[in-house]
Amino acid sequence: MKAVGIIAEYNPFHNGHKYQIEQARRMTDADYVIVVMSGSFVQRGTPAWTDKYLRTQIALECGADMVFELPTAYATASAKDFAFGGVSLLQGLGFVDTLCFGSECGDIHALWNAAQFLADPGEAFETTIRELVGKGLSYPAARAQAYAMHAPTDDIAHPQGTNMDGTLNDMTHPQHIDMDSTPDNSSTASSLLQSPNNILGIEYLLALKQLHSKIIPVTIARKDHGYHETTAKDKYLSATGIRDYFLTQGKIPVDYLPAEAVNILQAARNHYPVTLDDFSEMLYYRLSTCSPEDMTRCADVSDALAARIHNLLPKYKTASNFIELLKTKQYTHSRISRALLHLLLHTTGEQTKLPVSYGNLLGFRGSASGLLRQVNDFPIITKKADALCQFHKLTEASAKHAISLWNTDLLADNLYRQCLLHKTGCALPDCYHAPLIIPRYPLC
Amino acid sequence: MKAVGIIAEYNPFHNGHKYQIEQARRMTDADYVIVVMSGSFVQRGTPAWTDKYLRTQIALECGADMVFELPTAYATASAKDFAFGGVSLLQGLGFVDTLCFGSECGDIHALWNAAQFLADPGEAFETTIRELVGKGLSYPAARAQAYAMHAPTDDIAHPQGTNMDGTLNDMTHPQHIDMDSTPDNSSTASSLLQSPNNILGIEYLLALKQLHSKIIPVTIARKDHGYHETTAKDKYLSATGIRDYFLTQGKIPVDYLPAEAVNILQAARNHYPVTLDDFSEMLYYRLSTCSPEDMTRCADVSDALAARIHNLLPKYKTASNFIELLKTKQYTHSRISRALLHLLLHTTGEQTKLPVSYGNLLGFRGSASGLLRQVNDFPIITKKADALCQFHKLTEASAKHAISLWNTDLLADNLYRQCLLHKTGCALPDCYHAPLIIPRYPLC
Repeated sequence: MKAVGIIAEYNPFHNGHKYQIEQARRMTDADYVIVVMSGSFVQRGTPAWTDKYLRTQIALECGADMVFELPTAYATASAKDFAFGGVSLLQGLGFVDTLCFGSECGDIHALWNAAQFLADPGEAFETTIRELVGKGLSYPAARAQAYAMHAPTDDIAHPQGTNMDGTLNDMTHPQHIDMDSTPDNSSTASSLLQSPNNILGIEYLLALKQLHSKIIPVTIARKDHGYHETTAKDKYLSATGIRDYFLTQGKIPVDYLPAEAVNILQAARNHYPVTLDDFSEMLYYRLSTCSPEDMTRCADVSDALAARIHNLLPKYKTASNFIELLKTKQYTHSRISRALLHLLLHTTGEQTKLPVSYGNLLGFRGSASGLLRQVNDFPIITKKADALCQFHKLTEASAKHAISLWNTDLLADNLYRQCLLHKTGCALPDCYHAPLIIPRYPLC
Repeated sequence: MKAVGIIAEYNPFHNGHKYQIEQARRMTDADYVIVVMSGSFVQRGTPAWTDKYLRTQIALECGADMVFELPTAYATASAKDFAFGGVSLLQGLGFVDTLCFGSECGDIHALWNAAQFLADPGEAFETTIRELVGKGLSYPAARAQAYAMHAPTDDIAHPQGTNMDGTLNDMTHPQHIDMDSTPDNSSTASSLLQSPNNILGIEYLLALKQLHSKIIPVTIARKDHGYHETTAKDKYLSATGIRDYFLTQGKIPVDYLPAEAVNILQAARNHYPVTLDDFSEMLYYRLSTCSPEDMTRCADVSDALAARIHNLLPKYKTASNFIELLKTKQYTHSRISRALLHLLLHTTGEQTKLPVSYGNLLGFRGSASGLLRQVNDFPIITKKADALCQFHKLTEASAKHAISLWNTDLLADNLYRQCLLHKTGCALPDCYHAPLIIPRYPLC
């Protein structure tokens, strides 16, 4: 029995996600598609557009076999820690053979080369970045350009072997993968690090390497032609595009979501949207009752940023407006968003230093239940009230880490639940009463 | 020059308040009426219906000469600490000769006897209260009944001397006051402690006694026939009645407020109402991020109440709904409201143990400015940015206390400001930019 892992946010789930699940299953010949999904908050530093229970239900109806929650501390962290969290959770399960992720380039070879290089880029690379930043480039742009200057371009794009679009046979450790992908523009060294999903993909590869994982990575070219694109192309529109459409039109762009997702979303109208500004009052309260010194205990909050937050707080209006106020060339919108979210949730950088130490099961198809019996030492949380008992099987350090992650998850869910209740009247169950999502009938 | 002090909330200011100012001035022959007013939050454990700047403006237009803010820690405390705060601030100013307060009985003699008795009531009194509580009476009801049983009734209501309705001449220390009041029903021992303004009045007298104050107390019968009455009588309707009217009718009951107050309120429509439920999200956040152990650091939060809050938190919907959930025979609505507010504002019981150590001036009539020059050692805060410098003239312990009170006031104002902005779009200035309210023209 083979299982392929996918790390996702489904914020919201769209045709591209369904395509990815289908392709992942086909390419890896997997019996099961295992999803690690963000919970109440996502990586751009905002609440998820709709709650994790609804998103789990949609994912299961649209082809996933099992959905675990990526603990909030990782789900809201930088690409590196997000990737490390997702990969380490899949690794912890023990039954996942392959990891499938979307990328702009769709070229595992190019991504692997980049990962190899970036694992130990050397002083010259760092110097170039500093010089370029000094010339006025943003850090990501400088890094992308430095990579084009220093990367071993000879190694890029010499594909041979299996067909990218076909079943991936005889996959071995990524060092030895040869894939017959046709590298597009975004696999060239100069553009590789300019695309967010390429960057995230490289982080997945680095995490696999760090964990000495036997999980084999596979990438497919994303169908939603751009992470932030808001205009539609064929039947694909990015999650950002879908959220924006809803915001302006007041309805879901049904052409760009699978029918199952549309049906579920339309039947649960008061489950969304949740936006950052629904947390404006809570965030203001948190910032008003926290000294700059205490702020720096949270992830991504430097001394300088804490001082900036403190100084600008009298001008606070809403969370999103405050991000705009705080933004500088040095502090990007995402960086600020995540820092504020870490302050709201009390998340620290320490929490993401270790691998994820448990799997919080959100839902699964009955046909996949056998997989759970294969797991021994890795706690799988099915009944939430038993979570702390489950952690007893861990070492003391791991148990302590697990409790810290779990408490953050509880807080994140509670705050999300309260804001949703306040906004739409939707009373989600608390974590002790939330049932596992198990589709009632066999689905395929 | 004589000055009479009034301790008030003006939540909102109504005809009864204007009558009190007029009577206080007349009875005491005072040149100035000095008001100590609650700021952003009031004693029933809720935010003030409208902001303190607007209330200051109304009070000045309706007869007050100077308005100071009662620090939040006292303004939101039990009747005893509220009274101690107000009286100690008036005492600290040094230029206040008399204190005028409303009471149901209008009988300073009866109130003074009660204060004398309650300052040292004896074991028998406490035993009776315990017995009555054991029989099912609430604590306030038991105390009222025990007082009727144990109080030295002979001393009650033997008025002679000056006319209650006339100018109060030759006022001496309260022990020697004789006033020609006609004791109504609420001055008899059996009913004295059943009326909230009598109880508060007794606390004022106890505070004067505790502070060895030379300020002379005067009481007048309240015209708004009942603290919680919501139906109108003549031109008087209680503040509760006015708020309820606004809530149900969507407009101010103009017959029961002075014309000046109506004009100001109507011109500043987005300054009100602020209600407890505007703080629902902030309060939920606070309660969700505070352990029961940490909760007990706040005033009025016992171990048992903290545990009860923690256990019922999953059922939280709104602040007012949560108070209803928490309420028991032991924990009254007011007790719970105040405890939750102390949690929100991080106020502790320690803060109200010492006398108020500064006067935060909110506004004054130009004609009263001379009074301020008489004040020496007691910091009068006129420019908010200089508050901390002002505290340098205090002893180390007093300065520390003042800083603690001041920080609570800043937090209270900031939270209030944010909730008002969120609800009505009204952007109040922060404390560093809020001007002193000085009516433009001499008013009378």
